[in-house]
Amino acid sequence: MNCICSQKDFKDALIAASKALPAKAQTPILSGILITAKNNEIEIQATDFSLGIIAKIPAEIENEGAVVVNGKYITEIISKLAGDIVTISTEEGSNLVNFKSEAATFSLYLMDAEDFPKVNRQEFNHSFFIRNNVLKKLIVRSTFASSTDDSRPVFQGCSVTIENNTISFVATNTHRLVVAKAEIEDNIPGENKFIVPAKTLNDLLSIINSTQNDNGVKVEFSDKHIAFTVNNIFITCRLIDGQFPPHEKVIPASCETFAEVDISEFRAAINRVEIISKQTEYNTVHLSFSNEGLELSSDSYETGKVVEHINAAVEGADVEIAFNLKYIQDFLKIFGGNDEVRIGMNDKLSPADFRLTDEEDFIYIVTPVRT
Amino acid sequence: MNCICSQKDFKDALIAASKALPAKAQTPILSGILITAKNNEIEIQATDFSLGIIAKIPAEIENEGAVVVNGKYITEIISKLAGDIVTISTEEGSNLVNFKSEAATFSLYLMDAEDFPKVNRQEFNHSFFIRNNVLKKLIVRSTFASSTDDSRPVFQGCSVTIENNTISFVATNTHRLVVAKAEIEDNIPGENKFIVPAKTLNDLLSIINSTQNDNGVKVEFSDKHIAFTVNNIFITCRLIDGQFPPHEKVIPASCETFAEVDISEFRAAINRVEIISKQTEYNTVHLSFSNEGLELSSDSYETGKVVEHINAAVEGADVEIAFNLKYIQDFLKIFGGNDEVRIGMNDKLSPADFRLTDEEDFIYIVTPVRT
Repeated sequence: MNCICSQKDFKDALIAASKALPAKAQTPILSGILITAKNNEIEIQATDFSLGIIAKIPAEIENEGAVVVNGKYITEIISKLAGDIVTISTEEGSNLVNFKSEAATFSLYLMDAEDFPKVNRQEFNHSFFIRNNVLKKLIVRSTFASSTDDSRPVFQGCSVTIENNTISFVATNTHRLVVAKAEIEDNIPGENKFIVPAKTLNDLLSIINSTQNDNGVKVEFSDKHIAFTVNNIFITCRLIDGQFPPHEKVIPASCETFAEVDISEFRAAINRVEIISKQTEYNTVHLSFSNEGLELSSDSYETGKVVEHINAAVEGADVEIAFNLKYIQDFLKIFGGNDEVRIGMNDKLSPADFRLTDEEDFIYIVTPVRT
Repeated sequence: MNCICSQKDFKDALIAASKALPAKAQTPILSGILITAKNNEIEIQATDFSLGIIAKIPAEIENEGAVVVNGKYITEIISKLAGDIVTISTEEGSNLVNFKSEAATFSLYLMDAEDFPKVNRQEFNHSFFIRNNVLKKLIVRSTFASSTDDSRPVFQGCSVTIENNTISFVATNTHRLVVAKAEIEDNIPGENKFIVPAKTLNDLLSIINSTQNDNGVKVEFSDKHIAFTVNNIFITCRLIDGQFPPHEKVIPASCETFAEVDISEFRAAINRVEIISKQTEYNTVHLSFSNEGLELSSDSYETGKVVEHINAAVEGADVEIAFNLKYIQDFLKIFGGNDEVRIGMNDKLSPADFRLTDEEDFIYIVTPVRT
């Protein structure tokens, strides 16, 4: 193997592919990245069996070949190289592969390329395109609400539904639930429903964020797998088996009280209240809505207490309700500038409904804390 | 107690004082900060017994008083307040003190002010002024070389010597040693020698870094204590008992080989070599000096190896020598831009001598790794 490529292209491809490296490799080969030089391209692959990423970059190939090296080290090495160009070479009889840039040469021990579990490029039944920004919005607005609890894998994913040209992402940890919707340009026949790991969606998000131009993301799926193609990067993963319980029932049919609050003001107050609430057993913030606005408070028997008033336009009966502060903070974090939230409530025991005042495509339901 | 002060002043004073809060308070009161309102000033104190910090800020005092509250929380609270002004008040019969800014009121439980171990303002025998920038330079160039080993407290400090108008800081962990010198404007009679904890010097450094104007630092010392006054902030600590072994013997009397290397180029290469060296048992970098320049290399039986050439003007015999890479990196970190290092060496077993080519005030001696 002997080839030349751009240091920047190689670095970006390695950073993307290394997202598929397992945190703890169950077998040594899974800590490796497969680098294949062929047909004027270098292809970089990593996988943890459930997630696989392939990135391709242009290269000048003198001798074709394939090597597997430790993924963490090669990514660190290529990121720190000073030159614009990297030369990759192996020597007959040597168990090392050389990466040379300017006056520095790194030689890494080879892992057995035969053992590497190549990323499966199966056939998919369906495919569509989605704009980078639309997909980013769906991911940012949904994955935060998913669960991190290993015992119920289904809630570690987002339930994606595609019907005609509408796509929706639903995520929940059973205490809060989010529904984010968007339109796509293609029209997909039938109702398509599957659960994508939230981790894969967040990996995809950071790959989309690192691309310069919005060329759209190609999404392909079948019964057991999904794949995303962003420019030169292909990401595929197994779908999560199982089903989400129907979420429509969780959304309140009607609300007695509505309050409109400026999101920036709400977020700043919540971030202050957190100093006290995080000392409490359930990270509890008390919200009191009345015609005087919104009073936030928290009380820790160890530290002390906090009370803050902010503006809120409240219609309907006064409500006193308490939440896990983190669930409110997570939602306020993802919106910016001039956004306003409309909160629908019934009483202190019933789930509250958070929406944007000027958008239909986002619903966030949070179960209160009983106090 | 009832008083008003600037949020920014109060925040800066709390951030400075909280550097004296112990990481783990041995008694609860040591996690507290004493806030005293008196004579149009608020005085903020914290101490871990060995280090004490007092910061004063102007205030409008309606009722004088003193409170002790948890130092960590009050610093976090005041830092997050939105308003420009903070009102501090206590109420008769209440065990809370209120901090109010705009629409937010925090009430923290009081700790017993009587129990607070006030910072001792003893008499000092000597005092002098030093420019902020001169003191910063001495601290940055010395503390990094001190030891973190609790079993030999003397090496956790910098040995400071003041003779006439010369001040020198010496620090060592017994494997490497640094001598940094500067001139002061005052002339101090006799030879004065004491050991200041490196941690205190680094706390002082961050306080100096956060001040806007260079009004100079007042330094006062006696047999057992030292104090620094930076604008409105007073920092005092116990000196470390004991003596440094004479360091002059460690500095090579003559060198067979000298090499001049650009520091930026050296640092970039060292940071690359680190990827491999950190996999080795002693974080070893091999340096080979010859008339072809400097070759850096490292070899890990697990990962692989690296070789890099950089420019170096070498006079005298060729030298091959190995170091703990961290000791080289620590020194290269503190210099910037156009600095050049002149390295004096004898053989692979003798300490090497690192100096700046255009300055007399810095000497860094590193013992090689035996390979």
